[in-house]
Amino acid sequence: MNEKSTIKPYVIGLDLGGTNSVFGIVDSRGDIKATTAIKTQGYETSEAYVDAAVDALQIIIDQVGGIDKIKAMGIGAPNANYYTGNIEHAPNLVWGKGIVPLAKMFSDRLGGIPVAITNDANAAAIGEMTYGVARGMKNFIVITLGTGVGSGIVVNGQLVYGHDGFAGELGHVTMVRGEEGRSCGCGRTGCLEAYCSATGVARTAREILEKSTEPSLLRDLKPEDITSLDVSIAAGKGDKIANEIFEFTGKMLGEACADFAAFSSPEAFIFFGGLVKAGDLIMNPIKKGYDDHVLNIFKGKAQFLISGLDGASAAVLGASAIGWEINAQ
Amino acid sequence: MNEKSTIKPYVIGLDLGGTNSVFGIVDSRGDIKATTAIKTQGYETSEAYVDAAVDALQIIIDQVGGIDKIKAMGIGAPNANYYTGNIEHAPNLVWGKGIVPLAKMFSDRLGGIPVAITNDANAAAIGEMTYGVARGMKNFIVITLGTGVGSGIVVNGQLVYGHDGFAGELGHVTMVRGEEGRSCGCGRTGCLEAYCSATGVARTAREILEKSTEPSLLRDLKPEDITSLDVSIAAGKGDKIANEIFEFTGKMLGEACADFAAFSSPEAFIFFGGLVKAGDLIMNPIKKGYDDHVLNIFKGKAQFLISGLDGASAAVLGASAIGWEINAQ
Repeated sequence: MNEKSTIKPYVIGLDLGGTNSVFGIVDSRGDIKATTAIKTQGYETSEAYVDAAVDALQIIIDQVGGIDKIKAMGIGAPNANYYTGNIEHAPNLVWGKGIVPLAKMFSDRLGGIPVAITNDANAAAIGEMTYGVARGMKNFIVITLGTGVGSGIVVNGQLVYGHDGFAGELGHVTMVRGEEGRSCGCGRTGCLEAYCSATGVARTAREILEKSTEPSLLRDLKPEDITSLDVSIAAGKGDKIANEIFEFTGKMLGEACADFAAFSSPEAFIFFGGLVKAGDLIMNPIKKGYDDHVLNIFKGKAQFLISGLDGASAAVLGASAIGWEINAQ
Repeated sequence: MNEKSTIKPYVIGLDLGGTNSVFGIVDSRGDIKATTAIKTQGYETSEAYVDAAVDALQIIIDQVGGIDKIKAMGIGAPNANYYTGNIEHAPNLVWGKGIVPLAKMFSDRLGGIPVAITNDANAAAIGEMTYGVARGMKNFIVITLGTGVGSGIVVNGQLVYGHDGFAGELGHVTMVRGEEGRSCGCGRTGCLEAYCSATGVARTAREILEKSTEPSLLRDLKPEDITSLDVSIAAGKGDKIANEIFEFTGKMLGEACADFAAFSSPEAFIFFGGLVKAGDLIMNPIKKGYDDHVLNIFKGKAQFLISGLDGASAAVLGASAIGWEINAQ
């Protein structure tokens, strides 16, 4: 930390989700000093949203000693473009259908502090580098396993944004080509996300249950109600079918990581999200899929890690870490 | 160029190939001022190779005014590790089976000038950025189509070496999973290289000729003698089968580029090597394969370019460009 950072010891993180917008004021160690939240969707315009956000923020800013203690703000949000500072055509935000210059809007209302914005998977990657298991690493990939499959890629110590700000969509590399590929939410087929997102895992569960006659705890549930959490719980109890589902999912992720190694040869793959709460039950199949498939020169070199950020506040921490990044530049 | 570069206006490039080692002294515009060459394999030890190389080099160094005019040296070589400066276990070099600290060996013999080494595809990428069609670009990917399929990836204006120096092996991403995949020289199956290298294209030719009864100029050749150059020549004459071979190859490359876009969202894909001499006959199928397959947010954004480096001297120029890179750091 340089001299200035002792004067301005905090950054603001905003995890802008589809339902809630959670704010945290965070120090350089990743300790959250104060938090607040508003509903994301309760506003018709982006101006009204920012008004409400700044009203809520002001209270916690005052708690830590005022805006002069704040170095910068980072926002993790859907359809966020790091280069422009805009949210662009976010289909799931009431007030986000067009181009919303959210970074500038917050900066203007917060005394001109620097504000940067990126998507949540990129925020997670910077969070891991700042406070988590990637501290000191220069080349790694974070893969977020949630409703979708996202990724944040770090090369030479910098996040990979690409020429347009939209790099790191590893959920949409093609794993199964041609007609056999599962349909994906992106309109194409065979994407990694179609197999390894929460809904992808649930679909795998239904497919494997249908093909097999093996007894399983998952048979107590209606097929259409099975979630990836149910699979995790059953796998934890030693359920064979549930473990088969994880083996299929892990193999797919491991083989995808083998391709990613051929791209950027990271020292670690870091997994984030609900699925990795299953621990070795999912991580071992991932590692096996990778080892069985990766090019010889990469074998045995990469670590496979679980996110070091605390689940509940991980997204806010990730967002706040973007604030430190601005200052590092 | 800074002040020093007006005093030391040249770099040495060495294209260390399996047969010949070609040296060039190059200025900052990419003009080759002097060249020489030795046989790569005519030496039993790396010391004997470097002795012969420096003897040959000394003559052209003197031609440009002596070693004081040389800023640095760049080497493009197989199995080269940028971080260590070594050639590591190069199976095709008589004197390269172990660890050969080639960068240090040349530096020691050339008055201590900085020497850097990398593989030929990475050298091509730096060459394009320094003298070629990627001047001014910060995010692009060079794909070399030759005996193998290689790649050099630039992100944020820097070459991607990965944590171990071996990143950018895009010839070995898996395009066809499972038993259907063609066997690849790397010992695995389904790699991009197994389809789009010179031997891959020749294999596609044999497969398509066998399946079809369509007349073709290629039927005048023995199937085992068909080369990718024969396919290019036939395609140029409007041969249907030859164009079908290019469509298959281009589709595979285009779909691979769609995955690469999801990774680093480059502003351009630059193709290098014998195959691209066919021009639009191969480039159009590549673009179509990409457009048909890429994620919506990337559609229409990337350029598809043919290398801007002159074929005969491209490898030496690429290698020399690494020399300027050292100085930029």
